[in-house]
This record gives sequence, structure tokens and C-alpha cells, in this order.
Amino acid sequence: MTAKVSVIGLGSMGLGMAQSLLRKGFSVTGADLNAEALKKLEAAGGSGFSSAAEAAREAEIVVVVVVNAAQAEAVLFGEKGAAAAMKKGGVVICSPTMSPDDARRLAAKAQAMGLYYLDAPISGGAGRAASGELTVMASGTAEAFAAARPALDAMAAKVYELGDAAGIGAAFKMVNQLLAGVHIAAACEAITFAAKLGLDLATVYKVISASAGNSWMFENRVPHILEGDYSPRSAIDIFTKDMGIVSDMGRKENFPLPVAATALQLFLMTAAAGMGRDDDASVARMIAKMTGIGLPGERS
Amino acid sequence: MTAKVSVIGLGSMGLGMAQSLLRKGFSVTGADLNAEALKKLEAAGGSGFSSAAEAAREAEIVVVVVVNAAQAEAVLFGEKGAAAAMKKGGVVICSPTMSPDDARRLAAKAQAMGLYYLDAPISGGAGRAASGELTVMASGTAEAFAAARPALDAMAAKVYELGDAAGIGAAFKMVNQLLAGVHIAAACEAITFAAKLGLDLATVYKVISASAGNSWMFENRVPHILEGDYSPRSAIDIFTKDMGIVSDMGRKENFPLPVAATALQLFLMTAAAGMGRDDDASVARMIAKMTGIGLPGERS
Repeated sequence: MTAKVSVIGLGSMGLGMAQSLLRKGFSVTGADLNAEALKKLEAAGGSGFSSAAEAAREAEIVVVVVVNAAQAEAVLFGEKGAAAAMKKGGVVICSPTMSPDDARRLAAKAQAMGLYYLDAPISGGAGRAASGELTVMASGTAEAFAAARPALDAMAAKVYELGDAAGIGAAFKMVNQLLAGVHIAAACEAITFAAKLGLDLATVYKVISASAGNSWMFENRVPHILEGDYSPRSAIDIFTKDMGIVSDMGRKENFPLPVAATALQLFLMTAAAGMGRDDDASVARMIAKMTGIGLPGERS
Repeated sequence: MTAKVSVIGLGSMGLGMAQSLLRKGFSVTGADLNAEALKKLEAAGGSGFSSAAEAAREAEIVVVVVVNAAQAEAVLFGEKGAAAAMKKGGVVICSPTMSPDDARRLAAKAQAMGLYYLDAPISGGAGRAASGELTVMASGTAEAFAAARPALDAMAAKVYELGDAAGIGAAFKMVNQLLAGVHIAAACEAITFAAKLGLDLATVYKVISASAGNSWMFENRVPHILEGDYSPRSAIDIFTKDMGIVSDMGRKENFPLPVAATALQLFLMTAAAGMGRDDDASVARMIAKMTGIGLPGERS
């Protein structure tokens, strides 16, 4: 268990994953442009670097936890990228939400350099990252799974093995994000409509979350609205990105996604109104401002 | 517990509710135009009539379980309606899904005739109706609740007391239906898109129903699609109706409901394609036919 693991991208998810790896006895390096994040990694017992190449030098496992496919490509294959610095036969565990096409393209590049690649989108949030209880929707060759397994076991409570090629994990994650995004938009539309109808919102939450109208997102996000707290647990910008990928995938496949397209517009409206970096429950705040209704902690 | 209760509308919900009342020792009459339903009521120990007035003669409690506000108005206040036949001081428990305005209007009419009125939309399905375990989202005066209580206790596992006037229960139900309808449409959009992406649908169901993309409706309806079984547990026509009421309410309140409006269009597309009386998961079948993908038990 003394393999060298490098975590590229030390936001709240990456930092939590690094902590979980350190707890299991791995030698952990990390890379981020944010000096504060590198200090936190070092305080937890890891070594921080400002470039992916330095962090990944001779690493057997590289975990990529950046925001999107373009960043993943840059930190893996760009200038001072991780891939060229890794041990041959090492594995890239690639976790950003991206289209299946992007996952396949990155996998092919890694394989051409003698590396294994696991398409491994994650869910669970920062808390579960820190406790080593993420859910991973993974696909890749048997060799990629075998090479990644020790790190996966340290970071995740649940690893779905979804297929033998990159792209399948990404597709599962996108289907999940489509639903999650629609359910956030619907929760915000419903709760603001309930306010317009004069209903007591705490009672709406209690009744609906115990009824057939419930969703994981309704249950999780509506409390942010009831508390008037829009500090970002997950930001609007994440869903403009993810629902944007869903929209691109639908166009490429010639497949209509009207409900997802409408939800995307609501996230874009919220971002356009200046709330892109706020919590994704801000869709409710945008609707409230537009329609002149009052929400807890907000002025109409 | 020998109060006379009359159930107007003996579909699967009404019949189940009548059975629950009989089990608790009430004297139960019922009215329906379907002779088969009357026979079932009589087999369970009740008395069946072809008009609401006959069934409701001197009834202390009348439970209305018809399809919509127009039917409720007809069976209560139309020719051979129940209201004029009831005992003065009796209570109408009115359960169809309808707009708050309709609920207020029916309540005012009942009150003008010396009756109490409980705005009492239900959820839970035929199984829970028969076992006396419905959920009721009720509002009305304290006197209406007191008069209705014995019957509510016999029919429901959970009675939410949501306010002291008719219209509030209806509004809660409509907010629930908005979310339920959106979640069905989103589940059908997501599962057909997953099929288009070549994913194994049983695995999609397993992974998503354990993830942040889950909803009560995803979990409940997707199995119908996996089994290719579109026999109506709840029909498309119910949601063209209910999402239509939501749409009307939004226009009346000058309140935009873009996600709900899009879901309504998907239900209308499915009804227009000839599947109005099929299970509401048929939205997936409509999308599959449109896009030429295969679903279990369906030809593309």
C-alpha cells in the first residue's frame, strides 16, 4: 500500500480524496494553482506542487479531479502535464464530468503513451470525498480496473463497474446529471409557485418530500431555499456546464431532450442574472426576483 | 361508528375507499354509472345506486372520488346530485385533483346549502385506498375536519391538516402533481436517451435510483419501461389533465412554469400518438417511436 498516488486538482473534492488516500497509507502528492490548497494537502501529510508534471513524477496512479474535459486534457497532456511524467503502466483515474466522446479521446491518448485509463466520474460531494465514501461510475479495461483498485477502495464506498471501455462511465454520469439538473430546476419552479400561491413553504417541503412528487434533489436543495442560504454547496455554473454537455450530446445523437433543454435555460437565466457562482438552488432566487415574490431571507 | 357514508365514484380508488369504510363498520352506499362497480360494492357489503342523490339520501358524510372538478360539481350540485339529498350539517369530502379556485367555488356552494366541505385531495393509489392507508392533503374549517374525521381515519394512514379554508389542500396537491409530472417526463426522456447511448437499461435503473438523479417517480415508473408493460397503473390522460390544471393556474397567476409546460407537451404528444389511456410511462414509448430506438418489449 505504498504506491505513489497523485491527485491533480485540489478543490474540495480532490482535497478530500487526497485525505482519504493518505489515511489508507498511500504516498500522496497533489497539484493545484491555488497555494492555499497545497498548504492544506501538506498539513494532511501530502506533498504539494504547482504543476501536474512535478506532482505525477513516477506516480503509479494519477487521479484527475478538475472541472471539465478541457482542463483534464491540459493537466494530463499539455505543457507540464502528468501523463508524460507517470510511471509506464500506471493508471489515470479520470473523474471530471464530460461527454463519452471526450472520455474516449482522453483514454486513447493515455493508452498511446503506455498508460491505463479509467473513465471514473464521481458523485457524493465533498463530505463523502473526505470520508472515503464516494460513489464512482467507472468503465475501462480489466487492467485499468486492477491498477486503479487500491486507490478506488480508499476513496469510494461504491464502485459501479459499468463496462470494459472508456465512455460508458461518462454516459451514466451524464444521464444522472440530466435528471439531477431537471429535478433542481423543477424543485425551484415548484417551490416558488407554492410561494406565489401563498402556501407555507416549510409545510410544502414536509408534505412533498413524503409524497410522490419527491426527488433526491428536492429533498436536498429545498432546505437551502427555506434557510435563504445560497452559499455554494454546488454552484449554478456546474449545471450550466453539465446540462450544456447533455445538450451537446443530444444534438450530436439527433435526440430531442426538451425537458433537459428547458432546465438548461433556467440555469443560464440564473447565471445571466449574476448568480453563476452561487448555490444551484439559486434558480429559485432568480424566479423570485423575476416574479416579485418573497422567499425566506430574500427581498422581493 | 354507524354513520352513513356515501362514496360517489366507484373507480379503483373509490371502491377501495368504500371497502376501507365498510371494514370499519360504516354503513356505506355508493354511486357509479358502471353496473359492474356497483356489484363489487354490494359484494363487499355496501349498497349501490346509479344516481348520487339516491346514494347520498340522508348521508352524514359524502366522499367524492370522481375525475375532475366538472364531474364533482355535477355529482354534487347537478340533477340528481348528492348535496341536496344529504343530511343538513353533513360533510362533503371532496378528493378529485382540481384548481384551488374550483375547490373554493364548490366549498361555497356546499356551505350555502348548510353542508361542511373538506378540500381533500388524496394520493397513494388503489392499493392504499383498499387498505385504508391513503395520504390526504386536506384543508377546511375545524367543523369540516371534525365531521369528516371518522371517515378520514378509516381511509387514510396520514391526514395533513393544511389550513382552515378550501383551496389550500388543492394547491398542495397541484404542487405535488407539477413535480410528479415533470419527474415522469424526465425519467422517460433520460431512460430513452440512455438507450440511445447504448447503455444497459436495467443497470441505469440500478445506478440512478441509488444516486442524486433519483426521484420517487423514476424509481416507480422506470420498471414499467424495463418490463415493457404499459397497462395503466395511472394513465397519460391523468397527467394531461393535471398538468393542464397546473398550466391554467400559472397563466391565471401570471407565473411562468417552463419546466412544467414542457412536461405537459410530452404528455400531450403521447396522448396524440394514441396512448392517452395507457400507463403514463408511455412517454418513453412515444419518444422511442419518434426516435426509432428499441425499448424492452417494443419494436423500434
